[in-house]
Amino acid sequence: MSENLTLETRPSHLNGLDVAAAMATIAALKADKSLARFQFRARNQWIKGGENRSTIQGFYGAGQEDSSRVEPFEFTNGEPPVLLGNNEGANPVEFLLHALAGCVTTTFVLHAMARGITIQELSTELQGDIDLQGLLGLDESVPAGNERIDIKLHVTADCPDEVLDDLLAYAQQHSPVCNIVCWPVPVVVERVRPDPKN
Amino acid sequence: MSENLTLETRPSHLNGLDVAAAMATIAALKADKSLARFQFRARNQWIKGGENRSTIQGFYGAGQEDSSRVEPFEFTNGEPPVLLGNNEGANPVEFLLHALAGCVTTTFVLHAMARGITIQELSTELQGDIDLQGLLGLDESVPAGNERIDIKLHVTADCPDEVLDDLLAYAQQHSPVCNIVCWPVPVVVERVRPDPKN
Repeated sequence: MSENLTLETRPSHLNGLDVAAAMATIAALKADKSLARFQFRARNQWIKGGENRSTIQGFYGAGQEDSSRVEPFEFTNGEPPVLLGNNEGANPVEFLLHALAGCVTTTFVLHAMARGITIQELSTELQGDIDLQGLLGLDESVPAGNERIDIKLHVTADCPDEVLDDLLAYAQQHSPVCNIVCWPVPVVVERVRPDPKN
Repeated sequence: MSENLTLETRPSHLNGLDVAAAMATIAALKADKSLARFQFRARNQWIKGGENRSTIQGFYGAGQEDSSRVEPFEFTNGEPPVLLGNNEGANPVEFLLHALAGCVTTTFVLHAMARGITIQELSTELQGDIDLQGLLGLDESVPAGNERIDIKLHVTADCPDEVLDDLLAYAQQHSPVCNIVCWPVPVVVERVRPDPKN
């Protein structure tokens, strides 16, 4: 993280972020790297067919369990009729695009702040091409995931184009979700056997 | 996709899926592989700080633009206070867990149907450990994404344990989102320059 902001010049807020709080967080993580260890969680319940629902609330981070969320977030996966559902919700591959869009955006905005850049407007358009022969197991040579994901990013800010391009490359390299998509992350699935007493 | 269901024995619905419709879809895709090509999309608008919102509606698949969704789905990314937000929504890494949970679940349920297995209950618990030194660029040797993602899957069904384990391995291999996480998918980001006439 480059930090162009000095104590003398920095505003109280930049891009909607509390600059002093951000700098204090960075300083705390530098002093104690274990504070940077987070664990995020989701619980999901199948309903029927392609419909299922996640609840997301607690997580561990900055050295403790978080208790800031009084109510859980709930999100429903569904499928459109052409994929045997009733549009009960967006489908999982669409939720992944939402996660990717948000992560690249937040990473861009955060590092813009660290560089003293004011973002005026920022939006993205994503598209992911996928061949469902992979999901269906009709052709094992076809990958089940997207072949590629394209993001068009529209941004206006108070800096030259070349600075924006450098910031965008940095954000892409440092976005957690973009990294999860671009690089292999092991997924370990364990089937939990029912308690025999039940 | 293994198909244990014969015309004589198959029920009208299994695991909440219309079996005849599913079999007709599979037959159509086998006859014309181009029908398996889908493109999913999302548009995202930054609001402030770590808050941004996606709209998801149209997609291309089965040879045409889909028009089944009258209204778009909307989802808001946010961050908790410890990450400089106000819990405006779940954060992108949590949405990724939701997408992964849903995709593994739907893939499992779909292939259970194809094998003639009735699922009675299915739920998952996910956790993803992540070191935010990567996101913040404090240590370039730390990956920005999750080190790994763990899924505990609870399932009861009308088949032996070894059949469930085989089905689970198959679902993990054929789930689109699980593949996107486990294998590299290129993300191509293009900055769209504003129209100079504006």
